Amino acid sequence: PRRSSRALRVRASVAIEKETPESEPPPTFLREDGHGSGSVRARFEAMIRRVQGEVCAALEEADGGGARFVEDVWSRPGGGGGISRVLQDGRVFEKAGVNVSVVYGVMPPDAYRAAKGEAAKNGAAAADGHKPGPVPFFAAGISSVLHPKNPFAPTLHFNYRYFETDAPKDAPGAPRQWWFGGGTDLTPSYIIEEDVKHFHSVQKQACDKFDPSFHPRFKKWCDDYFYIKHRNERRGLGGIFFDDLNDYDQEMLLNFATECADSVLPAYIPIIERRKNTPFNEEHRAWQQLRRGRYVEFNLVYDRGTTFGLKTGGRIESILVSLPLTARWQYDHKPEEGTEEWKLLEACINPKDWI
Amino acid sequence: PRRSSRALRVRASVAIEKETPESEPPPTFLREDGHGSGSVRARFEAMIRRVQGEVCAALEEADGGGARFVEDVWSRPGGGGGISRVLQDGRVFEKAGVNVSVVYGVMPPDAYRAAKGEAAKNGAAAADGHKPGPVPFFAAGISSVLHPKNPFAPTLHFNYRYFETDAPKDAPGAPRQWWFGGGTDLTPSYIIEEDVKHFHSVQKQACDKFDPSFHPRFKKWCDDYFYIKHRNERRGLGGIFFDDLNDYDQEMLLNFATECADSVLPAYIPIIERRKNTPFNEEHRAWQQLRRGRYVEFNLVYDRGTTFGLKTGGRIESILVSLPLTARWQYDHKPEEGTEEWKLLEACINPKDWI
Repeated sequence: PRRSSRALRVRASVAIEKETPESEPPPTFLREDGHGSGSVRARFEAMIRRVQGEVCAALEEADGGGARFVEDVWSRPGGGGGISRVLQDGRVFEKAGVNVSVVYGVMPPDAYRAAKGEAAKNGAAAADGHKPGPVPFFAAGISSVLHPKNPFAPTLHFNYRYFETDAPKDAPGAPRQWWFGGGTDLTPSYIIEEDVKHFHSVQKQACDKFDPSFHPRFKKWCDDYFYIKHRNERRGLGGIFFDDLNDYDQEMLLNFATECADSVLPAYIPIIERRKNTPFNEEHRAWQQLRRGRYVEFNLVYDRGTTFGLKTGGRIESILVSLPLTARWQYDHKPEEGTEEWKLLEACINPKDWI
Repeated sequence: PRRSSRALRVRASVAIEKETPESEPPPTFLREDGHGSGSVRARFEAMIRRVQGEVCAALEEADGGGARFVEDVWSRPGGGGGISRVLQDGRVFEKAGVNVSVVYGVMPPDAYRAAKGEAAKNGAAAADGHKPGPVPFFAAGISSVLHPKNPFAPTLHFNYRYFETDAPKDAPGAPRQWWFGGGTDLTPSYIIEEDVKHFHSVQKQACDKFDPSFHPRFKKWCDDYFYIKHRNERRGLGGIFFDDLNDYDQEMLLNFATECADSVLPAYIPIIERRKNTPFNEEHRAWQQLRRGRYVEFNLVYDRGTTFGLKTGGRIESILVSLPLTARWQYDHKPEEGTEEWKLLEACINPKDWI
């Protein structure tokens, strides 16, 4: 969707320094610079760290075999850092990653003006002829991809993030910018209507608590975003997606992002519990592996977070934890019309209203 | 490398129409428009089609289990077409693709001027004030990726291609442009020195027949090109690579490309014969699968032919036949220092002179 131009411009102008491993997570990644515990930054960080803990605990319990998330904590010389948690080769989950990051940076003045929607030529110098300096920014988010082993248990992705640009250092009175982005989407290899309806219903409930326009708008945005153009098919069966959102009350959007993040477990765990022990054969598994290949294609070719991360030198292992443990590419594979595999593909080509 | 700017500009300005399946290959994909059997176009097409036949026959023989290449022929409404041949799930080869294509197109006049090295502002109109029209171009190539099953048998990639831009339709006297590109490179999961030295020696012999500067230059170009920037490692152990080559006699370069293409079998088949039955265990196989994951990362994120093909709507199945049948991504996998896996990784990080 074209709406995320602001977020993209911020991203495109930033190169991130190399990270340093840390032995344990700090109480907060925030600096002590006036953004106190009541600030949106602080409350967003607290929310994503709480959700990371809750999601990981619930997944370990659903996995059931004693497999545990392994934690990597890192920091950046410029400030901020992150916590990557990965569970690999569990009983239920082949690979599950749940990452949070809180990073600071500085964007060039041109990018800042672009983010504010000013044309570069108008903003090149202030009225007093003074050239503005670099603009500090802040970005925090939780990002997760969960790949189960069972071909009837769907892959889940969710990501919620908050951006701020500060006032330019030499113009303390200038306006600050902020926006929210995120979404939750489901990628099954087989359509089990009960599961897909349940998933979309939970997304709709979360949206409807805030604005009746949210669900139809963010459902379509999701279908548009997770589009594998060269295949003319979507990665999966969608969910919700939004970016660059700031034209509502900031408190309301913070509560909305929180509600969405808190909806991940009620949307997903009942599906996992129903499908984690469903019997399957080698053909089911091969089809799942082919769909995982499509997941890789989307993430490496189109996903903004991934392609941006690879280009700017983000922590590679955290970025690519979204890739499945294994994937498959078979030449010219076309499912036979009317089969379950064909039905899934059809729904990826023509997105449906599930509820 | 920065030298391929001309080829890139041509590619970036072209969107390819959808292909039509054909029942069998035509004697030639060339048009009957004055490019007779003695033209470079015709001789290049004849060469790549002969090499396709020879390589497929030799691979079927090496595979030994009776598996055969499956052929797909396609054409484009605008002229030209291609022949894709794929052998999948053989005894020795997991997936082997050998494609030829011969396509025509039209590039906008700006791209043509850029290709000729003229600045757009100077070339916008000829001296007589006449605006030049679109410029016809021609591109032919053979492209192949061979993925064996055995972790001790390396993956091979080769690609040889020839481009021409015709005179603009309304300026028949204007100069035509042509250039050659290509290369052959080896991607093992384990270093077997005898094999790597043999492979590079054959490349050097082919180069040395034409110009003593070719091998050092094209070996380095290959190491630079197959670079996975976000990993700071190469895809494999290199070979030769060149692009945008036209500053030599055209006959000489046609002969050079032919020599390189004819060196594929002597470079590769002896290695396959030596390694196709080497015993291996699950750990060898898992490491091979991780390296295949890197292959996917390079091809989807950096490879120009792939990313261009995906963006312009080329035949997806032909483009992505380069991806392995299966691949693997394991979180934060680091081979132990001194192991065979570590040695391979070291050689991908610091390219060596093997001969």
